[in-house]
Amino acid sequence: MPSYKLTYFDVRGLAEPARLLFHLAGVEFEDKRVDFGSGEWEKLKDKTPFGQMPVLSVDGFDIPQSAAIIRYLSKKFGFAGKTPEEQAWADAIVDQFKDFFGEFRKYIIAQRGNKSVEELEKVKAEVVKPAQDSYFKILNGILEKSKSGYLVGEGITFADLVIAENLETLGKYGFFKESEHPKLAALKQKVYGHAALKGYLASRPDSQI
Amino acid sequence: MPSYKLTYFDVRGLAEPARLLFHLAGVEFEDKRVDFGSGEWEKLKDKTPFGQMPVLSVDGFDIPQSAAIIRYLSKKFGFAGKTPEEQAWADAIVDQFKDFFGEFRKYIIAQRGNKSVEELEKVKAEVVKPAQDSYFKILNGILEKSKSGYLVGEGITFADLVIAENLETLGKYGFFKESEHPKLAALKQKVYGHAALKGYLASRPDSQI
Repeated sequence: MPSYKLTYFDVRGLAEPARLLFHLAGVEFEDKRVDFGSGEWEKLKDKTPFGQMPVLSVDGFDIPQSAAIIRYLSKKFGFAGKTPEEQAWADAIVDQFKDFFGEFRKYIIAQRGNKSVEELEKVKAEVVKPAQDSYFKILNGILEKSKSGYLVGEGITFADLVIAENLETLGKYGFFKESEHPKLAALKQKVYGHAALKGYLASRPDSQI
Repeated sequence: MPSYKLTYFDVRGLAEPARLLFHLAGVEFEDKRVDFGSGEWEKLKDKTPFGQMPVLSVDGFDIPQSAAIIRYLSKKFGFAGKTPEEQAWADAIVDQFKDFFGEFRKYIIAQRGNKSVEELEKVKAEVVKPAQDSYFKILNGILEKSKSGYLVGEGITFADLVIAENLETLGKYGFFKESEHPKLAALKQKVYGHAALKGYLASRPDSQI
């Protein structure tokens, strides 16, 4: 087994689906967390492939971009979908998440930029809400047709991890209430209740994002 | 060989890398182009998996999301990278393109929204320029280390198609001048000069995007 090191800030964020995947697969990895504000990131930045985190190091070979990282690991560990078509659908769901996250991020940026309550509400109503409605409609449509309760095929894939984690974040920001979205809530509970993940989920550091 | 049908608007846009890939691989496909404004898209929309185009149909099985489509076809046709690590890098480059495109899209949306010249210049300077600088820095960094002149490994991959097409679009919008970015220009010329693509590139319908 190669030596894996996953480097990211000390939050869930874009690295958490890969962390969950390591736990799901029962594969050891170094969960390197860079303390925001410690100056460590500023020193590390130019050494990363794209000047961004997360970065996955596999025996010292660096892979950037969260979705590329989780696709790579999923294929290694058998959570990428059982056929090329299942893999394409898992990919498409994660691409859809990326499109949505680009819009949701504007709210996070506005919040960090100390915008007024009115401005935040404007971003929420005009940017996040329509993007989320469209994203949730797609996810609900997929789950309505699912026999397993997972997003793709009969078992858990990296797409479930990415979406469940995103639902957790949306919940923390007040954008997702389980009672309002029963199918999405059931997916999240299915992932969060997975036997291989329970221990980590109960003990991981809490973070808003 | 399965029957492939690629459905998109009658522009290059998000479908063009997949069209190029079919030509590169010498695989026949139906290049279904929906005329914007004909009302055809409005009828088709609810039948697509995510209410979006492009959609790839493989013997009637539909795959949404442009990046998922090109990854799927690249694996089938042998242009996804030769190792899991090369594939992860091709993935990461396309993910980086997606991040950039989310910012560039704001300019297109502003333009279509008939914003004033001042507002367009503001989006250009404050949104597109910084995102493009960061994106070009990453691409140039990769090409500096490349021995083949391609973005990943020794041969052409789907990442080269995605980036070359994006450079073509950026050029049409005045955001990319070949003389200012010699490494990126060389990549684009390498892709556009590929023997298997020349015929299609000379005859394809011209479009701004």
